[in-house]
Amino acid sequence: MESASSRPLYVGLAGLGTVGSGLVRLLREDRELIEKRVGRDIVLRKVLVRTATRERQAMLPEGCELTTDMTSLTDDPQIDVVVELMGGTGAAHKLISRALAHGKHIVTANKALLAEDSEDLFRLARENNCLLRYEGSVAGCIPIVGTLTDPLAGNHIDSIMGILNGTSNYILSEMTSNGMDFDAALTQAQELGYAEADPTLDVDGFDAAHKLTLLIRLAFGLDYPFASMPVQGIRNMDKRDIAFAREFGYRVKLIAEARLHKDEASGKTRLEAGVFPALVHHSFLLARVGGVYNAVRIESQVSGPIFLHGRGAGALPTASVVLSDLLAVARMDRPNNTGFVTEIEKASIVPPEHWRSRYYVRVMVSDESGVLRDVAGCMADEDISMAQVIQKENEDNVVPLVYMTHETTAQAMSRAMQKVRETGILRADPVFYRIL
Amino acid sequence: MESASSRPLYVGLAGLGTVGSGLVRLLREDRELIEKRVGRDIVLRKVLVRTATRERQAMLPEGCELTTDMTSLTDDPQIDVVVELMGGTGAAHKLISRALAHGKHIVTANKALLAEDSEDLFRLARENNCLLRYEGSVAGCIPIVGTLTDPLAGNHIDSIMGILNGTSNYILSEMTSNGMDFDAALTQAQELGYAEADPTLDVDGFDAAHKLTLLIRLAFGLDYPFASMPVQGIRNMDKRDIAFAREFGYRVKLIAEARLHKDEASGKTRLEAGVFPALVHHSFLLARVGGVYNAVRIESQVSGPIFLHGRGAGALPTASVVLSDLLAVARMDRPNNTGFVTEIEKASIVPPEHWRSRYYVRVMVSDESGVLRDVAGCMADEDISMAQVIQKENEDNVVPLVYMTHETTAQAMSRAMQKVRETGILRADPVFYRIL
Repeated sequence: MESASSRPLYVGLAGLGTVGSGLVRLLREDRELIEKRVGRDIVLRKVLVRTATRERQAMLPEGCELTTDMTSLTDDPQIDVVVELMGGTGAAHKLISRALAHGKHIVTANKALLAEDSEDLFRLARENNCLLRYEGSVAGCIPIVGTLTDPLAGNHIDSIMGILNGTSNYILSEMTSNGMDFDAALTQAQELGYAEADPTLDVDGFDAAHKLTLLIRLAFGLDYPFASMPVQGIRNMDKRDIAFAREFGYRVKLIAEARLHKDEASGKTRLEAGVFPALVHHSFLLARVGGVYNAVRIESQVSGPIFLHGRGAGALPTASVVLSDLLAVARMDRPNNTGFVTEIEKASIVPPEHWRSRYYVRVMVSDESGVLRDVAGCMADEDISMAQVIQKENEDNVVPLVYMTHETTAQAMSRAMQKVRETGILRADPVFYRIL
Repeated sequence: MESASSRPLYVGLAGLGTVGSGLVRLLREDRELIEKRVGRDIVLRKVLVRTATRERQAMLPEGCELTTDMTSLTDDPQIDVVVELMGGTGAAHKLISRALAHGKHIVTANKALLAEDSEDLFRLARENNCLLRYEGSVAGCIPIVGTLTDPLAGNHIDSIMGILNGTSNYILSEMTSNGMDFDAALTQAQELGYAEADPTLDVDGFDAAHKLTLLIRLAFGLDYPFASMPVQGIRNMDKRDIAFAREFGYRVKLIAEARLHKDEASGKTRLEAGVFPALVHHSFLLARVGGVYNAVRIESQVSGPIFLHGRGAGALPTASVVLSDLLAVARMDRPNNTGFVTEIEKASIVPPEHWRSRYYVRVMVSDESGVLRDVAGCMADEDISMAQVIQKENEDNVVPLVYMTHETTAQAMSRAMQKVRETGILRADPVFYRIL
C-alpha cells in the first residue's frame, strides 16, 4: 500500500478536444484537491492527438509528450491508466482494447462505444483485473453510474426513467415556455452552443438511447442490444401538442425508460425499454426538469423512488467527472472511508451571528398609530432594508406585521429585534427566519 | 482474487431491532442478487443481542449463533465484517473500535456515533486497512455518502444543503397543506409511526445536525465539532408563519446547510453551517420535497447544482442500504466495473407494440357532423376507452380532437389509428404519445 501511494499515477490521454483540454486544466489547477483525496500525484505523461501542433504542446504540462501514435500510449509500460476522450467507436475501441490487454486501467466518457460495442471491453477488463470507469458517459454531472454500481447495489431495481439528453430537453422547454416551434427552438439551441450543427444524435433520441443502454446494464445486469432499442425523437414534435398537453396539466418530455415486468406465473422477467416523447404530469419532479438539465428516477420496491437531478453536460463538468474516475483509479487498492486520505482538519467556523441572508420577520403589535414607523426605525438603525411588508388583519387588537428583508446578518436582525422589544409595542416575541 | 471470491463473507451482526431484522430478511431473500453482484455468499455467523430469546433464535438462519457477549463478535477470527445496528454511542463505540482492532471491516448506520465520537474510529480503520461504511447513516435511501466519496470526488464543493429529517418534513408538510398546528401534526406523525414517542432528536434538529456533520466531512474534508453546531428545530413553528410565507411564494422547511466562504484576500476558507427553519421559494426543487422524503442539494462551481431526492428512512430501506455496504465489502479487492460479477445476460424484451400505457391522441378532422362518433367507434373497436376528450376550435375548417385514453397497448393504438385513417375523415396524420 505505501509503495502504491507514494508514487504518482501516470496518465495517458487520448483526445484533446474540449473535455480533454478541460481535464488538462483540472489536473493542473486541482493538485491540492487531488493530494487530499488520494495522497499521490496524478501526472499526465502522454497525449494522443491526430495532429500534433505547437499550440497543443503548449497546453500540456512540462514533461508531457504529444504523440500521434496510438501504441505509444497503449504499450507504454510506465502509463497506469488511459483516458479515452476521442469519441467515435472504431479507433476508440481499438485503443481501449489494446490498452486493457497491456493491463492499463481505462477511464472514458464514450457512451456510443460503450452502448454499441463494449462487451469484449468489459470482459478484457475483468480478465486483466483492470478498472474500466465511465461516469462521464451518462447524464453529465449526475453521479448515476456510481450510484447504481455501489450504494444501490443491494436493491432490486424495478424501473429507471430519465431525461438523459439536455439538448432535447432545452428545445422542449423552449417550445413549452415560449411557444416556439421545433425549428426555431433548435436554431436557438445551436446558437447558444447547446446543440451540434448536426443535431441527429440528440433530437432523434439516439444519444438518450445510448445512455439508457448503459443504465439498463447497471441497474438490471441485462444487455439490451442497442440496435433493437425502440427510439423516437422530438423532431416532429408539434407545438400544438405541447400546448394541449399543458391544458391537461402535463409537460412533454423526451423520456428514456426501462422497466422490468415479472411474469407471476413463470417467475420470468422481461424488460420494457425505449426512448420516446411522453406526457409527464406537472406534479412529478421529472416534469420540473428544465433547460439543459438531466434527471434520473430509479424505482425499487424496498426504497421507493430515488430522483437525481443535475446539469446534463458541458466540457468542464464532464472533465471533473473524468477526474473523479481517475481519483478512483488512484486509490483502488485502499479503503476509501471518508473520501480523503488526509486527516480531517478542524473547520474554521463562521459564527451564526455573521451569517448573511434575507430574512422573514413577523412582529405582533398593538393596533395603534405609529407602530409601523417604530419598527421601521429599529430596522433602519441596523441598516436592514425591507423588500416587502404586509400588514395583516387585526386579531383581537393585535396586528401581525410581516416583513421580507434584503440581505443582512443574523446579528443585525437580533439587535433590531431587541430594539423593537424595548419600544414596548410588541404583544408577543418576534419571529424571524432565513430566506434561501 | 480467486480465493477471496470463492469463500463466503462472514458477517457478525450487532443489534436485532427493525433494521437488523430487515437485514436478516434481505440476506435470506436476496441470495440470487448477492450472487450476481459479488459472486460469493454473505453468511450471517453471529448476532449480538442484549437478551437471547427463542423467538430471536428462530429468526436466524441455520448455523447462526445468538450471543450476548460482545467479544464473541469482535474477536471471532472467522468473522470478516461487523454490522453495527445497536444505535447509541457508548457500547457501539466500544464494539466498533474493538472490531477494527481485530481487523474487521465495519458497516454501520449510526449517525449519532459517527457525528459525535468517531475520529478515532476512522483512524483505526485507516491503520488497519479496514472499510468503515455508513451509507445508511445519512438521508435514508439517498446515496449521498457514496456520491460524495466517489463520483463527486473531483469537484470543489461550495455548498451542501438538505432536508435531512423526514419526521420534521412530514410535520411541516402537514402544517402547510392542512393548516394544522405543530402539536396536532406531531401527534399525527406519531400515530403513523413517523415520529418517536420522544421526538426531541427529530423536531429539535439534532438528527439533521448529526447528518450534516457527516456530510461536512465528506464534502469538504473538514471536521465541524457537533457540540458547536448551531441548531434550531421546528417545535416553536407557528402555523401563521407558514401561511404568511406561502403568501409570498415560499415554503418553510427545516434546512441543514453548510457553505464554504473563501476570503479572497487571505485565500483562507471558513465554513458556515447549521440547522434552521428557512423559507424556500416554491420554484426550488427543495420546496417540492414533501412528507417523509429527504433531499440533498450539492453545489459546485464546475458542475452546478446536483439534487438528490428519496425516502428519508424506514427499516427495510435502511437494511437495503446496509446490504449495499456489505456488497462493497464483499468485493473490495476487485474492480467493480458493471456492478455485477457475472456476465451481463441478454435481456428478454417486451416488444413496443405490447407496451401498456395511457395515451394522448390528437387527430385533425374536417369540421363535419359525425366525426367524433367515427373516431370513437374506431377506438371502441380496439377496446380503448377514453378518460377525457377536448374538441378544440376550428382552424380553417380543420378541427383538432384531443383525447386522453385509459390504459391500453401501443398495438391497439396503432390499429385504432389505422382504422381512423381508413374512414377518410383525417386531414393530417394522427399523433399519439404515452402518458407517464
